[in-house]
Amino acid sequence: MNTPLFEIDLKVRDYECDAQGIVNNANYQHYYEVARHEFLEHNGLDFYDLHQKGIDLVLISIHVRYMNSLRGGEQFFCTIDSLEKEGIRYIFNQKIIRKSDNKVCSEAKAEVVSVVNGRVSMPAILDESFAKYFQK
Amino acid sequence: MNTPLFEIDLKVRDYECDAQGIVNNANYQHYYEVARHEFLEHNGLDFYDLHQKGIDLVLISIHVRYMNSLRGGEQFFCTIDSLEKEGIRYIFNQKIIRKSDNKVCSEAKAEVVSVVNGRVSMPAILDESFAKYFQK
Amino acid sequence: MNTPLFEIDLKVRDYECDAQGIVNNANYQHYYEVARHEFLEHNGLDFYDLHQKGIDLVLISIHVRYMNSLRGGEQFFCTIDSLEKEGIRYIFNQKIIRKSDNKVCSEAKAEVVSVVNGRVSMPAILDESFAKYFQK
Amino acid sequence: MNTPLFEIDLKVRDYECDAQGIVNNANYQHYYEVARHEFLEHNGLDFYDLHQKGIDLVLISIHVRYMNSLRGGEQFFCTIDSLEKEGIRYIFNQKIIRKSDNKVCSEAKAEVVSVVNGRVSMPAILDESFAKYFQK
Repeated sequence: MNTPLFEIDLKVRDYECDAQGIVNNANYQHYYEVARHEFLEHNGLDFYDLHQKGIDLVLISIHVRYMNSLRGGEQFFCTIDSLEKEGIRYIFNQKIIRKSDNKVCSEAKAEVVSVVNGRVSMPAILDESFAKYFQK
Repeated sequence: MNTPLFEIDLKVRDYECDAQGIVNNANYQHYYEVARHEFLEHNGLDFYDLHQKGIDLVLISIHVRYMNSLRGGEQFFCTIDSLEKEGIRYIFNQKIIRKSDNKVCSEAKAEVVSVVNGRVSMPAILDESFAKYFQK
Repeated sequence: MNTPLFEIDLKVRDYECDAQGIVNNANYQHYYEVARHEFLEHNGLDFYDLHQKGIDLVLISIHVRYMNSLRGGEQFFCTIDSLEKEGIRYIFNQKIIRKSDNKVCSEAKAEVVSVVNGRVSMPAILDESFAKYFQK
Repeated sequence: MNTPLFEIDLKVRDYECDAQGIVNNANYQHYYEVARHEFLEHNGLDFYDLHQKGIDLVLISIHVRYMNSLRGGEQFFCTIDSLEKEGIRYIFNQKIIRKSDNKVCSEAKAEVVSVVNGRVSMPAILDESFAKYFQK
């Protein structure tokens, strides 16, 4: 497995589990969002500051695969493995990896566009911040 | 049991349950909030319209008692039994009652203030809308 | 638009919105799950009864597209438009449609398998219940 | 302010905020629960292991006061300031304190009982683990 561009270290909270005793599927999407927002912050971009400047990052599609279930109290990494630019979309490839056995529990491909004052647009501030990550 | 001032009819969603198979405690607070917002709407007050006018209803305290657990798929009423005014606070007395056996699953006392342009205040619009509910 | 196989009628709860004032992306996944569970119940299959019999329906992948944002208080339908069977997978095609303007806000394709006593399997009880829905 | 018995260090996740741009009230209850479960783990008691042994810790009441609002991205401590035993109840006094300005954002008093095989009971394992914390 290649080194991810970025990762955060999380632990399942008991309320995130459902009656089957495992993390409810929708919560993986929360984890992926937290990782993307932390990634922005890591690159000097604050979700709120951007919003104040009229720039909103908007998820237009996400494909999540579930391979292994996380349980209450388990620790895991939520990664951003790579970032691509396709036309007006930024594509984040992400994983959730359980710490105890290094198993990939889930994979996601999230497509994001930036909306500037209500119109899809490519503000220079994002391209400059992300340029170093784009795959050759 | 007296007739409540207002009630809504809900059904537990499976994702609201935790690993013990019962509704997670924090979700009762969600149900109570939904009932209060629907109550506002029922009285011609929209949470968002109020916000646009600079009026925010803010919860300053809530006391929730848990007596019986709700399980996945169960139907229940979330009520507003009475509304009191104490100084600058509106106090909502609420209950969650399971439909199948009419058991009270939870009771709450929520204290709300209205904040107008950043300051605690008593806008006439609320007092007028609520006047008919205040207890003699 | 064809008539869906099944649909439920929901209303956005204010706590489901995030700081952008719109429903948080992960909550759409909650709505889609609620529709699938209600669909099971509609077909005489209870998520919990199945679990007691050792049969768990497990989401293995979901692809969600976001086209229009839902806001606090808005009413919408969450549908199951069609159900397909591909090998061991059941595929639910779903939509979220705003009531006020009939706009499709989101589309999803959810792939589910049934796990019987820990092994992926195809219990007759599901095939029999779903048979009338499979596309020719 | 006295030193708390226990505290955890958290950061607001954007999806925990609602349309007012602040953390939704119910999420404070999630934070308080996370702190109590981490406290158990810190004392060698695992929520799930206990459940397997037929011991469930059940919240019977919580009183939460809201003094200052947390916003997206803010860091805070969630504490357990003291633990009391009153008859069959354990009472956790907790706080949420913003890191940037050390302001108390919320206070809670949570009452918990232990249910052993369906009956309220006082298992020695809890009293032994908690004994060092009880106030003289």
